[in-house]
Amino acid sequence: MKFETLATDGAARAGTLQLRDAKILTPIFMPVGTQATVKAISQDDLEEIGYRLILGNTYHLYLRPGAETLRQAGGIHKFMSWPHAVLTDSGGYQAFSLSKNVKLKDHGVIFRSHLDGSEHIFSPESTISIERDIGADIIMPIDDCAPYPADDKRLKESLARTHRWLAECKKYWLREPRHQHLFGIAQGGVNPLLRADSAKACADLDLPGYAIGGLSVGEPLEYYVPSLAAAIEHLPKEKPRYVMGVGTIPELLNGVALGVDMFDCVLPTRNARNGQVFTSVGKVNLRNLKHAQSDSPIDPECSCKVCKKYSLGYIRHLHKQNEILGLMLSTYHNLYFMHGFMRQMRHAIQAQNFEQFRTHWLRLFAPV
Amino acid sequence: MKFETLATDGAARAGTLQLRDAKILTPIFMPVGTQATVKAISQDDLEEIGYRLILGNTYHLYLRPGAETLRQAGGIHKFMSWPHAVLTDSGGYQAFSLSKNVKLKDHGVIFRSHLDGSEHIFSPESTISIERDIGADIIMPIDDCAPYPADDKRLKESLARTHRWLAECKKYWLREPRHQHLFGIAQGGVNPLLRADSAKACADLDLPGYAIGGLSVGEPLEYYVPSLAAAIEHLPKEKPRYVMGVGTIPELLNGVALGVDMFDCVLPTRNARNGQVFTSVGKVNLRNLKHAQSDSPIDPECSCKVCKKYSLGYIRHLHKQNEILGLMLSTYHNLYFMHGFMRQMRHAIQAQNFEQFRTHWLRLFAPV
Repeated sequence: MKFETLATDGAARAGTLQLRDAKILTPIFMPVGTQATVKAISQDDLEEIGYRLILGNTYHLYLRPGAETLRQAGGIHKFMSWPHAVLTDSGGYQAFSLSKNVKLKDHGVIFRSHLDGSEHIFSPESTISIERDIGADIIMPIDDCAPYPADDKRLKESLARTHRWLAECKKYWLREPRHQHLFGIAQGGVNPLLRADSAKACADLDLPGYAIGGLSVGEPLEYYVPSLAAAIEHLPKEKPRYVMGVGTIPELLNGVALGVDMFDCVLPTRNARNGQVFTSVGKVNLRNLKHAQSDSPIDPECSCKVCKKYSLGYIRHLHKQNEILGLMLSTYHNLYFMHGFMRQMRHAIQAQNFEQFRTHWLRLFAPV
Repeated sequence: MKFETLATDGAARAGTLQLRDAKILTPIFMPVGTQATVKAISQDDLEEIGYRLILGNTYHLYLRPGAETLRQAGGIHKFMSWPHAVLTDSGGYQAFSLSKNVKLKDHGVIFRSHLDGSEHIFSPESTISIERDIGADIIMPIDDCAPYPADDKRLKESLARTHRWLAECKKYWLREPRHQHLFGIAQGGVNPLLRADSAKACADLDLPGYAIGGLSVGEPLEYYVPSLAAAIEHLPKEKPRYVMGVGTIPELLNGVALGVDMFDCVLPTRNARNGQVFTSVGKVNLRNLKHAQSDSPIDPECSCKVCKKYSLGYIRHLHKQNEILGLMLSTYHNLYFMHGFMRQMRHAIQAQNFEQFRTHWLRLFAPV
């Protein structure tokens, strides 16, 4: 893996991340393909838009189709016919939030499947082993992501466990690294001092890249920037930085402004399925009655194949009738939008124009 | 509209049907796009497979998005961005089977919308007017499709009403035919004598084409061929013949053997969404456990883009997880299969080889 910064504008940076399966331009947004599919879009369409790195979820893939099936298929790339790069999170977060009777122990997370109630354990050793079977290019360690709100005692406990597990994950990963790259995950809730401590502890382990986890878990918006800034200050400049599970257009803009390189979020795909699309003038609610007879595209400024072909009125009709094509067209549009948005962001950094870009888009996508 | 027979093999025939928006090769299978979308597939993909004529449903389109919206959009072709041909049924059947408090009167069908309970009437005049707004290339008249079983009294009543309404539909259609072509619909249940009477009455009205309705409404399989044969005997050879809402592979084969040119059915798309796909060796149930680790395509003999790219094991996983991509890939495959199947059927007729073709496929798709 090779990460290079090609341009900076303030703390914002544009670069490249070379993996075995793809050369990635950063900052990048990664679509979420939880169950080895990005919902309502084909691999061909993801590729056509320009995506080269998508997420898979270890918790879901471990339960279905199972690590053994993925190993036998030759890994997730072959299983889902995706020749480019994949990142898997560790599944610890989902084991905690989705499963039943969770027990957080010092050696791992014991949980019961949300599908059939069977008992499982995610430990540093088992998650690295599962992620090896899945075979993603970037793999995430199991961590203890404290919920919001959490007091300092709980956060300190989360850090101790997260850092100890990370060191163990590193040990198991290094036994057979193959083409895979382990990132660290810094926690610390909304306490900047703990965020700094956690970033330092992760950086000390000298890993290929670093993530900031535990944001966008219900905390007020105003905690995002200070928490992120406190962590980033202690992460090495020469390694990629990834904010997990983020985000909204303002979060992406403010993250990049602080020097973040990678983001993932279900927002563009989930919102698309709920009838909300992103455009050059802000969000549009497809189900709004005022669009019923519109023969304009979703966004006249957009050059995606959906906007070239279909009217807002037609896509509204599909959503109102719960037609699958409505989900397909909106998802394609939103992912095309996000890819273009990140490309424009890179160009703005290269043109030393990022602050103006950020101000423009913050205004259009201001939280209501 | 110009219909030509290019080759015959026994009663089976291969020909062309020239409409304003497409030149159709017959026998043809028409995918069903009830609400101005064929479920789980894009217009681009339908076109890529080779489809040039699809169905829309007048009942559904009349309720949502409404005839006025379709008229303002310039018709269904523009509304859904489908530059090829469309056929609309009259909606009478759906008014009867889907709506509430239906009253069958001599001047039309009075019904309450299944969506909001509002009261509406479908009469010969109103359905032709709605179908004019929708703007399909082939339009169907409102008819009285008796349920199965129905006694001869009910069937005779159905014929009288169907024929009277057809004459009225013809009158309203001829006031402003534009590019649209009205077909007659022969009824008659499973009584061959009444089937013959109805076909004669329709033929007497000298319309561009003729449909046989009221089959595949719950009657035992063995009634299909005699009912169809009795009608076809009295339909003119030089006009296209269409069996509505049919069908299964055996029904298509046996229909073509009797001289049918056109079919429509939700089966390939609905079965796809339920995890059943059609292959060169018969039906395959995608959800079957035995496919879990298969790295073969759905059908090794199939050259569709789904079979070229994705494994049966992966598509099974998508179906088991209720992922939208599973619906998309199976639908594409089944419609590709149907299009290829009809093309092979045409070639078999042209090669004077139809009976052998029919026997081969009847064996693979025998009703269990």
